[in-house]
Amino acid sequence: MITNKSLSARYQSIRQLSTELCRPLTPEDHVVQPVIDVSPPKWHLGHTTWFFETFVLSHFEGYRLFNDDYGYLFNSYYETVGKRVLRVNRGLMTRPTVNEVMDYREYVDRHMEVFVTSGELSDELLPVIELGLQHEQQHQELLVYDIKYILGHNPLFPVYQTSGVSDRDNEPAALNFLPVGEGVYSIGYNGEDFHFDNEEGVHKVFLHDFAIANRLVTNGEYLEFINNGGYTDFRHWLSEGWDFAKSLETKAPHYWHQVDGIWHHYTLGGFKPVDPNLPVAHISYFEADAYARWKGFRLPTEFEWEVACNQYEPGTQTTANFVDHRRFQPTMETRQHQFMGNLWQWTSSSYQAYPYFKTAEGAIGEYNGKFMVNQMVLRGGSYATSSNHIRPTYRNFFHPQLRWSCNGIRLAKHI
Amino acid sequence: MITNKSLSARYQSIRQLSTELCRPLTPEDHVVQPVIDVSPPKWHLGHTTWFFETFVLSHFEGYRLFNDDYGYLFNSYYETVGKRVLRVNRGLMTRPTVNEVMDYREYVDRHMEVFVTSGELSDELLPVIELGLQHEQQHQELLVYDIKYILGHNPLFPVYQTSGVSDRDNEPAALNFLPVGEGVYSIGYNGEDFHFDNEEGVHKVFLHDFAIANRLVTNGEYLEFINNGGYTDFRHWLSEGWDFAKSLETKAPHYWHQVDGIWHHYTLGGFKPVDPNLPVAHISYFEADAYARWKGFRLPTEFEWEVACNQYEPGTQTTANFVDHRRFQPTMETRQHQFMGNLWQWTSSSYQAYPYFKTAEGAIGEYNGKFMVNQMVLRGGSYATSSNHIRPTYRNFFHPQLRWSCNGIRLAKHI
Amino acid sequence: MITNKSLSARYQSIRQLSTELCRPLTPEDHVVQPVIDVSPPKWHLGHTTWFFETFVLSHFEGYRLFNDDYGYLFNSYYETVGKRVLRVNRGLMTRPTVNEVMDYREYVDRHMEVFVTSGELSDELLPVIELGLQHEQQHQELLVYDIKYILGHNPLFPVYQTSGVSDRDNEPAALNFLPVGEGVYSIGYNGEDFHFDNEEGVHKVFLHDFAIANRLVTNGEYLEFINNGGYTDFRHWLSEGWDFAKSLETKAPHYWHQVDGIWHHYTLGGFKPVDPNLPVAHISYFEADAYARWKGFRLPTEFEWEVACNQYEPGTQTTANFVDHRRFQPTMETRQHQFMGNLWQWTSSSYQAYPYFKTAEGAIGEYNGKFMVNQMVLRGGSYATSSNHIRPTYRNFFHPQLRWSCNGIRLAKHI
Amino acid sequence: MITNKSLSARYQSIRQLSTELCRPLTPEDHVVQPVIDVSPPKWHLGHTTWFFETFVLSHFEGYRLFNDDYGYLFNSYYETVGKRVLRVNRGLMTRPTVNEVMDYREYVDRHMEVFVTSGELSDELLPVIELGLQHEQQHQELLVYDIKYILGHNPLFPVYQTSGVSDRDNEPAALNFLPVGEGVYSIGYNGEDFHFDNEEGVHKVFLHDFAIANRLVTNGEYLEFINNGGYTDFRHWLSEGWDFAKSLETKAPHYWHQVDGIWHHYTLGGFKPVDPNLPVAHISYFEADAYARWKGFRLPTEFEWEVACNQYEPGTQTTANFVDHRRFQPTMETRQHQFMGNLWQWTSSSYQAYPYFKTAEGAIGEYNGKFMVNQMVLRGGSYATSSNHIRPTYRNFFHPQLRWSCNGIRLAKHI
Repeated sequence: MITNKSLSARYQSIRQLSTELCRPLTPEDHVVQPVIDVSPPKWHLGHTTWFFETFVLSHFEGYRLFNDDYGYLFNSYYETVGKRVLRVNRGLMTRPTVNEVMDYREYVDRHMEVFVTSGELSDELLPVIELGLQHEQQHQELLVYDIKYILGHNPLFPVYQTSGVSDRDNEPAALNFLPVGEGVYSIGYNGEDFHFDNEEGVHKVFLHDFAIANRLVTNGEYLEFINNGGYTDFRHWLSEGWDFAKSLETKAPHYWHQVDGIWHHYTLGGFKPVDPNLPVAHISYFEADAYARWKGFRLPTEFEWEVACNQYEPGTQTTANFVDHRRFQPTMETRQHQFMGNLWQWTSSSYQAYPYFKTAEGAIGEYNGKFMVNQMVLRGGSYATSSNHIRPTYRNFFHPQLRWSCNGIRLAKHI
Repeated sequence: MITNKSLSARYQSIRQLSTELCRPLTPEDHVVQPVIDVSPPKWHLGHTTWFFETFVLSHFEGYRLFNDDYGYLFNSYYETVGKRVLRVNRGLMTRPTVNEVMDYREYVDRHMEVFVTSGELSDELLPVIELGLQHEQQHQELLVYDIKYILGHNPLFPVYQTSGVSDRDNEPAALNFLPVGEGVYSIGYNGEDFHFDNEEGVHKVFLHDFAIANRLVTNGEYLEFINNGGYTDFRHWLSEGWDFAKSLETKAPHYWHQVDGIWHHYTLGGFKPVDPNLPVAHISYFEADAYARWKGFRLPTEFEWEVACNQYEPGTQTTANFVDHRRFQPTMETRQHQFMGNLWQWTSSSYQAYPYFKTAEGAIGEYNGKFMVNQMVLRGGSYATSSNHIRPTYRNFFHPQLRWSCNGIRLAKHI
Repeated sequence: MITNKSLSARYQSIRQLSTELCRPLTPEDHVVQPVIDVSPPKWHLGHTTWFFETFVLSHFEGYRLFNDDYGYLFNSYYETVGKRVLRVNRGLMTRPTVNEVMDYREYVDRHMEVFVTSGELSDELLPVIELGLQHEQQHQELLVYDIKYILGHNPLFPVYQTSGVSDRDNEPAALNFLPVGEGVYSIGYNGEDFHFDNEEGVHKVFLHDFAIANRLVTNGEYLEFINNGGYTDFRHWLSEGWDFAKSLETKAPHYWHQVDGIWHHYTLGGFKPVDPNLPVAHISYFEADAYARWKGFRLPTEFEWEVACNQYEPGTQTTANFVDHRRFQPTMETRQHQFMGNLWQWTSSSYQAYPYFKTAEGAIGEYNGKFMVNQMVLRGGSYATSSNHIRPTYRNFFHPQLRWSCNGIRLAKHI
Repeated sequence: MITNKSLSARYQSIRQLSTELCRPLTPEDHVVQPVIDVSPPKWHLGHTTWFFETFVLSHFEGYRLFNDDYGYLFNSYYETVGKRVLRVNRGLMTRPTVNEVMDYREYVDRHMEVFVTSGELSDELLPVIELGLQHEQQHQELLVYDIKYILGHNPLFPVYQTSGVSDRDNEPAALNFLPVGEGVYSIGYNGEDFHFDNEEGVHKVFLHDFAIANRLVTNGEYLEFINNGGYTDFRHWLSEGWDFAKSLETKAPHYWHQVDGIWHHYTLGGFKPVDPNLPVAHISYFEADAYARWKGFRLPTEFEWEVACNQYEPGTQTTANFVDHRRFQPTMETRQHQFMGNLWQWTSSSYQAYPYFKTAEGAIGEYNGKFMVNQMVLRGGSYATSSNHIRPTYRNFFHPQLRWSCNGIRLAKHI
């Protein structure tokens, strides 16, 4: 039961994480957009704030916009604005400054605070506020990716957070395969709590017998693929994947660099040698697929993943490596099985509508459905995900060539 | 049971169709490659011949290659040839001439004829010959697409074949939806005859209740979408589809042009007004998907399509509009239901491996599996398909933006 | 005669202008590189400092580099650095921060100060220091262009400097043409003071009778060209210019936008209506050439310009509109003739070597000669040029399509 | 004095050369457009015919166009045609066939023959006919380039004409430099015969003392540059030239390929080892400029070239290697000096208007002036030029990166 008090606490807690994530950054770090997929941190801070101003506060009489221009600066769906003379380019937007955006956040939070603390929590506004908070959590995950990209492509390799994570002397759990029996299973979100439209359409799927790996593939295991010539033998690759592999300047995961024959990589804890015991990250779907084929396995479908997770690890694992712990790196998986957290796991399922999927009316209807082509589903969340944002039914999706996100590999096989 | 006699007849019949399809062309028409997806007709004629020379004849002692250079000229998988100084570009290859390629065909056919008429039909070679024939039939379908593209982009709009097809005065069958009940169904090829690797892996899928249209969407029905502003309202479109729609110079199917306010299109029978009673063709997946959404329906999955086809129209329909009839245009569907022929039908399924799919060893293993990303499945065959080449389990696939192939729309819905 | 005292004053004065030019900027404004031709202001500040550290200070025993990494970060000629793992991209370089770069400047200036105040002004080092100062003045001009680009493409149109420049109520000098008689003239720098290698090779050219405009073309005059359909009639344009004109989204000079039918433009004094009495700026060579042809005139050659300037306005005009006056905008030309200042003037001469031009040895030899193809010469300096940096023989050069620089049109004709 | 008889002979002679040049081609060779600069031979045949039909025949009452559609198919200046639905793409235009285009030529020639044999040679039409003939000669030169490109990029390297040209055992003339004294010279065409607009504007230029090479640079001399690492040392190159050099897959002239360590090249006489005694051909301006700098010389200006040619080799040299001799290859230069023929020679002059240049009225005014930016002048003609088409004042021009044309290097220096 949502009360003003609980809502206020939740609102504050989520909102403050965005600014906390940006605290190690300089004003300069907030501005740039190195590639189209990476947004400036400043833009995330403004855009998530704009959501609450536009969809909540502006419905209240007497509320004055913080700045009339921010509407089109921070509207991600913006395409053309009739009376405006310039197209907005996120990565060139040096103004408003970071300080001005922080003022914007404070202004909006002050007004939201009044409302969530004492306002009437109507059935109309509550879902919008909830969507705004979930939306902010999604952008927090992107913030981590984007911050890593900006710092990790700076030749000075700045440290984001000094980290004590080190598992070099330990061993990860042995790799084994968890069996699941054939049958008709139910897929999709079936409950009362918040969830996205793309999880809806509870439906049945038939699964044949299969088994799924108990943990993610490690850097050490992936290095065998590299050292075995994995990137230079076309037989392991999808045809488009092979073009991708040939186009890579460095035949290795993103952020990897060979220094004096030793593989290093940029992490949010700085530039350091690759730890063979940690899960491999920042690989494309093409690489995940090629690795699995080379190894004699395959990737799981998203349905297999969901069913196995429900069977072996029901419920969200708050002890998993989520952003709650502020580790900002994958950690070694020593538990016997671990589905949630650490890294999003590429599945072999392309991102498409569930049966009975319905697009919602209005702007909110644009949320997920329109991306349902040419993308692959990932499951499980990552060290950049909030534990109270994720579920086993949660469907993330990326184009198969993308590597800046926190993703890894879980293997599967027929049995 | 395959005998020398039956094999010889089959070989001759299939091989001669390729040259028959090119007969209306001038030497000049055989040469060009207008876009990357369209190969010069001459190249198809040479490549299909190269297949038999390389995989069959060259295994026989004493066989002399027709021309040592043809190996790399007509090898579609060719990437780099060490001792060669020039990269082959299909669309610039004015030599060998059409006549020389026809000599090549005759030379190879003469040698093949000796073999199929009197040779021992070993378990080793028979499957290769069969694959070569199926491969040639696939290229015959592409030949029709490519010939249409070459002629249809010439400002003189040359007629390929004067056609008597005209249904302007008749009515197509009424559109209705055929119901299929929920259940676990078997999918994939389950028999003894030729089939492709991508149909293998017979497996079960659960389908919820659904209904599927008895016939394809007509030009007239699609015109309503155009006239209703379908191409200019982003709400109907996938996000990538919307970018595609905006990029179209003409907001209509490929080959359509408006002349004095009347929609015309290029057909292999010449440039003529669009007939509202015929099935709409040459639309991308994006357009098929947008049309279905606008109309309040959806596209079927490839599983739904296969199950419905098996239920309502078991077996291949030789009376359907296949290339056997040399119509070279879609025809009006007056039967109560018609799944096979006329136009390939976009499904909402992305092209991926069936469970238990196995890549074959060697070059033949490259056949289909490596294309299993970013493409959509189409079912049913078209007026460019041979009736003895297709099955209800046959999986064709194209990237979602492609329109030069003979494809159309069949609607579906949940019930 | 250069003394320690005069050198010190000159060094300080030039160095401080760079920081003064950046004073109105926020840290965020210093970082971005919107297009390839625009460098981040921070980079200019670092690069000009790197010049003194590398070519002067590092030759002194005991000097310690401020930061070992700055060498490759701020070296504009940098192409590959063996031991480095990342390619430097100026526009993504959020670190070092602006403050760190300012510390770098202070550190280098402190060490330079010791040297210029009390060091031996050797024949070896003096020319290098002088080149460093001239080099910094060139970057100051670019700084003004780049700052204008960054602010002028921000939808908030931030004001760089509130300006009192306004000539709306006055009239510019009447346009008339100054005659020059035919003859053999001497071209190129002939003196003892600093000059660039591309001015060397004093040589003779024969000029036929001609006349050159006493002042620049005004916004009002250029508007007639626009309103007369100048941008839509191919006959006025060079063939490549016509392609350029068609590609322009707004058929007008850069920074111009039509608001409610009135032409406005971004200036460093803010967004304001175009003043018809001021010189037109931010046009490409293509536009200058098309305007001249439309008007029945032509552009002068660089030789005609130099001879006319020497005849009508010998010596540098310190009263001209140079950056010394901190106007940051073109001003109305009320004098009877005015060659120097305000805006660089496109000539019809392509940028090529003078007879007897010699490339200097070593890195400094790369200075100018290698750009001598596909660029056009501009003469006269602009409101972003220092008066003690420019001469009538000074040859600036840009590709014909560039518009972000401060350039304008001076007409000429045969007589 | 032009008579009907002389005009008829001249018309026939020039027109038949076009068809003679295409005689070794197959229909397939006539169709393709491998790169934007290369037009299909068929198009040249049609376009030159269209010129006479449009600008001469269509002015006569009663003349019927051969085909109404050919107007836009063969109009090179065509940009948009209102009532047409398709943009013409030369390289996709498989129809009309070669035979149909030859019929078009015969039809137009038959009608022209009537006119030139018995018509009144008015002051209006004579210049148009003359321009048509000169225009055809220009396209004949392009035909040779384009045919070479089409055949020379075919992996079978078809022979165009078996050639007896071979100078491997002889020595070219010794390289020496012909001096020219400083002074004011007259430049441009000054006579009564046909010439192009870009040669007009006779004017004076002052030249300093210089000397110019007596012959072209040979393959053997250029090989020293290659073997000396000329393509991999940035110091020899213009900045844009360096980018060009790095982009070359083969660091050598166009058509060169290394086979077993020996440099070969495609010639119209077939694929053969490079002859060190013949002039080097198919190099860009960038390479000519880099070679000259590496060798310690420079390229001549177009004025130096014209003055030296007039002084040392006045008048057109019909014995020079022009297309009249049907050699289709450069030949060894054994004369003491040779300016005309063999290969066009890159000059260091960018292509710009002479003083007093005037654009003619109407379509013919588009002829040359609009290309006067970003191109370099070449002088002298080539083995693809007709001797009665060229003059010492003739100005050819190409973009600095182009190599498919027949061009070479003549050195110069200051003295």
